[in-house]
Amino acid sequence: MSKGVELKNPNLKNMSSDYLYHLTINVANTVDASDIQQQFGDVKVVCMGGTSSRMRDLALYLRNVLGNSDTSEPIDLAAGGHRYALFKEGPVLLASHGVGSSTASVVLHELLKLLKYAKCQDPVIIRIGTCGGVGVAPGTVVVTKNAFNGYLRNEHEIPILGKRVVRPAYFPEQVIQDILKHGNRSEDGFDTIIANTMSTDCFYEGQGRIDGAVCEYDDAAKLEFLKECHKLGIRNIEMEATMLSSLTLQAGVKAADICVTIVNRLNGDQVEITPETKKAFEQRPFLIVGRYIQGLFGK
Amino acid sequence: MSKGVELKNPNLKNMSSDYLYHLTINVANTVDASDIQQQFGDVKVVCMGGTSSRMRDLALYLRNVLGNSDTSEPIDLAAGGHRYALFKEGPVLLASHGVGSSTASVVLHELLKLLKYAKCQDPVIIRIGTCGGVGVAPGTVVVTKNAFNGYLRNEHEIPILGKRVVRPAYFPEQVIQDILKHGNRSEDGFDTIIANTMSTDCFYEGQGRIDGAVCEYDDAAKLEFLKECHKLGIRNIEMEATMLSSLTLQAGVKAADICVTIVNRLNGDQVEITPETKKAFEQRPFLIVGRYIQGLFGK
Repeated sequence: MSKGVELKNPNLKNMSSDYLYHLTINVANTVDASDIQQQFGDVKVVCMGGTSSRMRDLALYLRNVLGNSDTSEPIDLAAGGHRYALFKEGPVLLASHGVGSSTASVVLHELLKLLKYAKCQDPVIIRIGTCGGVGVAPGTVVVTKNAFNGYLRNEHEIPILGKRVVRPAYFPEQVIQDILKHGNRSEDGFDTIIANTMSTDCFYEGQGRIDGAVCEYDDAAKLEFLKECHKLGIRNIEMEATMLSSLTLQAGVKAADICVTIVNRLNGDQVEITPETKKAFEQRPFLIVGRYIQGLFGK
Repeated sequence: MSKGVELKNPNLKNMSSDYLYHLTINVANTVDASDIQQQFGDVKVVCMGGTSSRMRDLALYLRNVLGNSDTSEPIDLAAGGHRYALFKEGPVLLASHGVGSSTASVVLHELLKLLKYAKCQDPVIIRIGTCGGVGVAPGTVVVTKNAFNGYLRNEHEIPILGKRVVRPAYFPEQVIQDILKHGNRSEDGFDTIIANTMSTDCFYEGQGRIDGAVCEYDDAAKLEFLKECHKLGIRNIEMEATMLSSLTLQAGVKAADICVTIVNRLNGDQVEITPETKKAFEQRPFLIVGRYIQGLFGK
């Protein structure tokens, strides 16, 4: 049965209007947000990804999937804010989130509020991205199950009002399975796997890279750390999964994280694939999410 | 006496090449990086800020300051990466960093390595931005002294190889004073103050806002928290200062953080100034940093 988004914030009912600052969307009347419902009420899937250019590419890709013959340039609905891009292709909303949890959580809070005000029914949020791999071939697509933080704990840690708050960080099994059944086709030429993911707030020291501006450990210590990750079932490292899984769980909205690995960190830190190969790898999460969306809406 | 940038990473000397991935700058030969030195060796100031559009605006603003009559569009040297913008105006490098520490630390690591390879002499990194204020009028410019994290501790906490590492987080007094002497002119019409800053990785729950998608506290608890901040000398809240001060201290590179407040959080969470006022406020850090740069290079 479909259901709207019920957010865990009792304070929202006291707000007569709500300006979604970073999306530059004004909900002028929170009680009767019919304008917002008209514009966004049909949204069933929200795709998020790091860069605005990738989300624009995905918007164009999904037009084909959705059987939309429009050839016009996708309109960035949040262009005025200069921070995030927001596109809409039929029932799919696409938002860029930048690099890492700090920037992604800002836009995620506002997207969740938008889904609520628009009375979207049972939406799912799917992040697509690139990541480092741990013991898997570059080009492998990883669908995250449990998200670990930089302390190798399967939880999201966040300071709230000065106190340490720890919240669960995993993605709903049903969504993972619904996505996975669109992977591993014989024609794909790459593996789509379910695995655990480590998310960090630092790309260099946080992920055990030895090629950052500051580094106080050596290659041996790094490898020991990465092998510890591997033992925990971690097959990829990115910068958003713990926050994304945690906040969507708190909000009661389904979510998933689908990333393609572009380096095997057990072999080195530097990304050494050509830009062409990287571009091709980036298409792989498009393919999977495209099939998933086709399964939902395709004719 | 001028000095080059000596980074605390002994592993770098074992790298014959270094691809600064997110800046899309290839240091093909780390031993003889004369091409990089030719292009970037004159850099004395690195300005960082959230959005690429603001950094482009600042690049154009600084042309006037530096007496450069060029009217061409600033060239984004990192455009190929689609993540960060990088401009160069004479001895000033300008980089966008996105929202928050996760994204800002990535580009900061790479900028620090760029300064090292380019043999820049005694450079200073200055972040400009917008922020929430705590008990100061919107429009006040805050130059950060000590940076507090979301736990109200004057330190930067980062997981490295799975362990909690805590590092100092403050900006060098001399740089603060050098900047402050360019503020508070009678014609300014706004205050420029030195104060402490709180940085969080979450704009909503992390900063005690009650208007996020998830919130488990009420307005009274929020106000108590903000008053605790105020008691610690915190007059503004943003998302980068602890990481920025900590990482630049580790790297031995001078830095500063200059932000204009656009809301007084003691009075509310929502940004209620008009876009025009916001635009005008955003110019205030430009003014201060412009005078500072004019003091260094102006004719």
